[in-house]
Amino acid sequence: MNQDYIKPDEWSIIEEGFDKNLVKSSESLFSMGNGAMGQRANFEETYTGPTFQGSYIAGVYYPDKTRVGWWKNGYPEYFAKVLNAPNWIGIDILIDGVTLDLNTCSQVGDYRRELNMKEGWYRRSFTATLPNEVQVRVIATRFLSLKFDEIGAIEYTVEVLNKEVSITAIPYLDSGIKNEDSNWDDQFWNTTAVSFKDGRAFIEAHTMKTNFATCTFMMAMAQANGERIDASKSEKTETKASLLFETSIEKGGRFTLTKYGGYAVDRNHDKNELVAAANKVLDEVSSLGFDDLLETQKKAWTEIWQMSDITIEGDVKAQQGIRFNIFQLNQTYLGTDSRLNIGPKGFTGEKYGGSTYWDTEAYCIPFYMATKNQEVARKLLKYRYNHLEKAIENAEKLGFENGAALYPMVTMNGEECHNEWEITFEEIHRNGAIAFAIYNYFRYTGDYTYIPEMGLEVLIGIARFWYQRANFSEQKGQYVILGVTGPNEYENNVNNNWYTNYIAKWCIDYALEQLDKVEEGYPDDYQRIIGKTHLTEAETERWSAVAKKMYFPFSEKLGVFLQQDGFLDKELIKVSDLPKSERPLNQKWSWDRILRSPYIKQADTLQGFYFFEEHFSTEELRKHFDFYEPFTVHESSLSPCVHSIQAAKLGRMDQAYQFYLRTSRLDLDDYNKEVEEGLHITSMAGTWMSIVEGFAGMRVIDDKLNFTPQLPEQWSSYSFKINFRNRILKVAVTKEGSSYELTGNEEMSIRVNGERVVLTPTETVEA
Amino acid sequence: MNQDYIKPDEWSIIEEGFDKNLVKSSESLFSMGNGAMGQRANFEETYTGPTFQGSYIAGVYYPDKTRVGWWKNGYPEYFAKVLNAPNWIGIDILIDGVTLDLNTCSQVGDYRRELNMKEGWYRRSFTATLPNEVQVRVIATRFLSLKFDEIGAIEYTVEVLNKEVSITAIPYLDSGIKNEDSNWDDQFWNTTAVSFKDGRAFIEAHTMKTNFATCTFMMAMAQANGERIDASKSEKTETKASLLFETSIEKGGRFTLTKYGGYAVDRNHDKNELVAAANKVLDEVSSLGFDDLLETQKKAWTEIWQMSDITIEGDVKAQQGIRFNIFQLNQTYLGTDSRLNIGPKGFTGEKYGGSTYWDTEAYCIPFYMATKNQEVARKLLKYRYNHLEKAIENAEKLGFENGAALYPMVTMNGEECHNEWEITFEEIHRNGAIAFAIYNYFRYTGDYTYIPEMGLEVLIGIARFWYQRANFSEQKGQYVILGVTGPNEYENNVNNNWYTNYIAKWCIDYALEQLDKVEEGYPDDYQRIIGKTHLTEAETERWSAVAKKMYFPFSEKLGVFLQQDGFLDKELIKVSDLPKSERPLNQKWSWDRILRSPYIKQADTLQGFYFFEEHFSTEELRKHFDFYEPFTVHESSLSPCVHSIQAAKLGRMDQAYQFYLRTSRLDLDDYNKEVEEGLHITSMAGTWMSIVEGFAGMRVIDDKLNFTPQLPEQWSSYSFKINFRNRILKVAVTKEGSSYELTGNEEMSIRVNGERVVLTPTETVEA
Repeated sequence: MNQDYIKPDEWSIIEEGFDKNLVKSSESLFSMGNGAMGQRANFEETYTGPTFQGSYIAGVYYPDKTRVGWWKNGYPEYFAKVLNAPNWIGIDILIDGVTLDLNTCSQVGDYRRELNMKEGWYRRSFTATLPNEVQVRVIATRFLSLKFDEIGAIEYTVEVLNKEVSITAIPYLDSGIKNEDSNWDDQFWNTTAVSFKDGRAFIEAHTMKTNFATCTFMMAMAQANGERIDASKSEKTETKASLLFETSIEKGGRFTLTKYGGYAVDRNHDKNELVAAANKVLDEVSSLGFDDLLETQKKAWTEIWQMSDITIEGDVKAQQGIRFNIFQLNQTYLGTDSRLNIGPKGFTGEKYGGSTYWDTEAYCIPFYMATKNQEVARKLLKYRYNHLEKAIENAEKLGFENGAALYPMVTMNGEECHNEWEITFEEIHRNGAIAFAIYNYFRYTGDYTYIPEMGLEVLIGIARFWYQRANFSEQKGQYVILGVTGPNEYENNVNNNWYTNYIAKWCIDYALEQLDKVEEGYPDDYQRIIGKTHLTEAETERWSAVAKKMYFPFSEKLGVFLQQDGFLDKELIKVSDLPKSERPLNQKWSWDRILRSPYIKQADTLQGFYFFEEHFSTEELRKHFDFYEPFTVHESSLSPCVHSIQAAKLGRMDQAYQFYLRTSRLDLDDYNKEVEEGLHITSMAGTWMSIVEGFAGMRVIDDKLNFTPQLPEQWSSYSFKINFRNRILKVAVTKEGSSYELTGNEEMSIRVNGERVVLTPTETVEA
Repeated sequence: MNQDYIKPDEWSIIEEGFDKNLVKSSESLFSMGNGAMGQRANFEETYTGPTFQGSYIAGVYYPDKTRVGWWKNGYPEYFAKVLNAPNWIGIDILIDGVTLDLNTCSQVGDYRRELNMKEGWYRRSFTATLPNEVQVRVIATRFLSLKFDEIGAIEYTVEVLNKEVSITAIPYLDSGIKNEDSNWDDQFWNTTAVSFKDGRAFIEAHTMKTNFATCTFMMAMAQANGERIDASKSEKTETKASLLFETSIEKGGRFTLTKYGGYAVDRNHDKNELVAAANKVLDEVSSLGFDDLLETQKKAWTEIWQMSDITIEGDVKAQQGIRFNIFQLNQTYLGTDSRLNIGPKGFTGEKYGGSTYWDTEAYCIPFYMATKNQEVARKLLKYRYNHLEKAIENAEKLGFENGAALYPMVTMNGEECHNEWEITFEEIHRNGAIAFAIYNYFRYTGDYTYIPEMGLEVLIGIARFWYQRANFSEQKGQYVILGVTGPNEYENNVNNNWYTNYIAKWCIDYALEQLDKVEEGYPDDYQRIIGKTHLTEAETERWSAVAKKMYFPFSEKLGVFLQQDGFLDKELIKVSDLPKSERPLNQKWSWDRILRSPYIKQADTLQGFYFFEEHFSTEELRKHFDFYEPFTVHESSLSPCVHSIQAAKLGRMDQAYQFYLRTSRLDLDDYNKEVEEGLHITSMAGTWMSIVEGFAGMRVIDDKLNFTPQLPEQWSSYSFKINFRNRILKVAVTKEGSSYELTGNEEMSIRVNGERVVLTPTETVEA
């Protein structure tokens, strides 16, 4: 049974009723982020029940010493961990000296959480009866400001329902926090100063080893029945700073604490000026005040939704699901900083500690290209360019040479963070996705300048890697790639994974093509790059020989490419013929059994058909889809979206919709029973792709947008917007057909179901 | 450079001169054991320099919680660790109040260690100048009694050279010890009582979790210049018991402390009677006295050597090397207890914490069969029979059913202890070695009774495993075994490892054959076993179908079986063409590079040719040897012996001798730079095989011994004895030929170079 406690609503995530067993789940689901910091939906006040505390600062990590059972040469010494950062949200509340703690209250009523996605705020409200019989009603509203991305704001209101009481509110900062995920129980933070000034508090702390300097800060204002109350004292320990507000409140009276807090970090400021930077942003927001700051938040989210919303009519849960996905993606990464990237759990948990996987290139970039200014996708590409030197070093550690680059499987700063040999050393197809993203970026945006400026160097490093990684098989008379793990991680150390061989060959061909284009069109860049890489014609000829003679496993009998050598030796029992009790395999079967089975964790051969769709006929796609999908268990959150897109292309809308459902509410309905640990951020981009590329069939072909719109029969309509080369197109699909509305000044021609359609700005064209 | 500080000597291991950098190495090389306990050559007196303390009790282990980077389903929760046991050897010495510590002495002279292998004792002697300028000469002799295997004895003599001094000797027991190898720094021992009685001391302690109860005990007697001195006091802490002897000694005077100590354990005694058991053995040995006890030791070793010695003339280092190997094997396992087995490091270190690997069946059993009563090998087989239920449970954990048995890769008590998926789950050929050992035992001893009594059940469990582990490949029309690691651990998760497929088929065939033989010859046993295993004819027919249609990868072009599917796709560069700087590969190359290379860690296909030599022609052996050996890096201590035997069979004595050298002094000369961690016990049996099966060409064919004796040209002769079916045969090989001398009453016919030779007792026959 999946969980089913989130109330359907078009724009909000809503929980009603207090259930201690759901606290950790809701802490994930109601998480907030603004691209620079993130906060799980932990309670402000004390909570002694089960909770998973999490405050995160983008780009601040700790290199946790690698822990393995058996060391293998080449493992990285450290695994970069996302860190639980100092707590800035805490507000202890004492009523007549008794701590407000929902775990000890004799009664909790009218409990409600709402995450308003449209406006970007989160509110929790409840009535509670404390052990001393005092009844209170609490409403706590908070948000992480998009406009001032170093700060969050909280308005915490306590109404006393049954008697006059004394109330003490203690807003605090706390750097004495721990990571749940820690290999050796190291201390991750070193606190160097705790200070107060003008009613504000500051904790200066740096991470151990990485030495990221941070100042966690707060200011707080209190009111009782409209009267301002000043803090009566401040207190500090080595890792904690508290302000104390005390007052008495009559029955029916109301106490409100407003708190601003957050982080100033040395990525953005001189590390000796962090307190000054904190004061500056506190000055700005406090002069605005909570309500006006909230208005800036609503405005900022309105702008985001303006461009990135997808509307679905006729299915509230689907509407809520897709908006939740789009909301979370925007909470995680806004494209403002090329030093940051999109972690699989964003700012909602600690797992998958390293930030960047191939998820970014394979799944996230299309979303950001279409819903943001093209600079955002360019920043994501630049992130990898900036890591090229480290990717070359990484390849050198594994025995490659001459500038061959192997991008890490998981990284924070360009260095490899992962330590399973079958992944770290063998899941090398990631290099292909990084090259593909360069191609995809140009295809979509038409911005070629990235390639001479940065991309070509990345392509050269990657081509060099593939050239060296392949070897000539005398037996086959072709080049083979041995000992790899493909996208389907339920196979390890296989030979000639079709996807890997295919993308390797493509990478070399594409690099060679771009070398020619850059030589012709950007001779200065070409000279600079040749000078830097010492690339010779002899070398590119050797690459070319490998690409020309790359081996691809193929079954003549079945007419399909084989996922890898030997695939047909497996016992080919379809997933539908497996007992339900044996699923999910990753929980029920030992690893060796999974490996020798035909079962596929996520699209592998089909991932290649997705990336290189135009290389294959629809008939070939059908054949491969029909062969592989029945063996696919989709035990990765990244699998269903590719299948949904392909099922839609094959005109199988029922199946496409079923796949769509598996991702769109993955976290809201907690399909994998792990939402407590955080959300699946990167797969959310796949859900977006399922609608735009799947149902609506959007493709870019020869610089033109193409659509083949279809509508799931469960919906009455859907619509979305696309930023295509700085022109905004709104697409709506109804039972009657599809319509297209262009913003701007110029005409644009598109293709709908293969027919050319000319769009004129502001005119809605039905097709 | 290999180490070269051990003095050549036919019967002793000798070190001369004190070098702090060699202390840990010598602690391994001068280790003692008596099959029931073991002791590294740690100093009795305080030593503050680098040292690796190790006292071990056979069969006493701790299940250390598994540590991995990434958990895989099926991993065992715990890894059984050999434990550093309470210290019984310690004797602190104070001279005029200053502690004798070779690390702080201003001068150490005449330092000498001798391990007398002939007589089974170890002596260390030196002169030292203490920080207070007192000069002493120390002679410390110790041994672990073979006759009373719960006890060791130490005679520690201090002669004062330059002045009259007061001397304090504090023999102690200490259970406050630690393991160097510990996953979580757990406390492994819980001490429950420290007590004294009648000048004896006892520490009762049990292991955490496994709860093995032990009593570590000692008694000590002192003499100064022939006068007995009584202990002046006893002292204890929570984990330590000390006796204190004080006296003054004039210049030139001599102080001697005799200490008996050891362990009484609940494997042999009621756990509430351990102190009584300790007192009993102390009574026995103290009534004998040190000198008489040493006489029993000499006698016991004389008996062992009587049977197991190999003499080599013309090469002292070779003589020393082979005796060291034979000595260590006998120190480790004497065949007195079927609950014990032969750990790869014996009692000389902590590494490879689990005791039993397939090393026992593949390498050690031939040595024990030929140099001991056949009961000893039978006990080793019985060990696996006793673990059959656990092997069935182990297979169940991995998804097998119906009584299929998978023996663990590493075990102490029958449960799997290892946690690398590619080994634990996939190195399943170990099951084959266990079946092969049953066959080998019968072939050598002629004792069929083991099979109906115990072996057949093991064979059924193993056959069931192979039947279930293979699957039918529609493509090949044959049965395949996917996802395995063969003996060559430099390949992981390969398909159709030839060795594994071959031994799997053989196991099924052999089990079927034995079922018929037992049904015919031992009908009662047959009924019992069928009743217990519910084996049906339908099931054995299914086994048979798998065995008949097993697939073996083969190259028609090369005429060789392929180590696994796809082997010929590798870049087949020979080891001799690799730069020396890249070796050893396991230190220089990343794991993926090793995996996709053709390099072989230890005999794999050739291991099959070794086990099943009679299935192949010499020409086939030559072809496979010439194909595989050039890719073999022999980075396992278990590799050279098989190659030595096969090279000898192919008449390549130079090569055979080179391989022999790589194992015979592996530890004495520390080829692998790791002797500090302990000795390679199981590969020592391979060295013995290299001489007996390799140089002398011993085989058992149709119940008869066969020899094809050859002599390395570096030697003038060698000889060894064989216990063949309770008849003792002495074989000597000289430059002139070979001779055979039979003990006993009956004639025996053997074959020498294919010619029948009839041996009459006590008559030496030249051939």
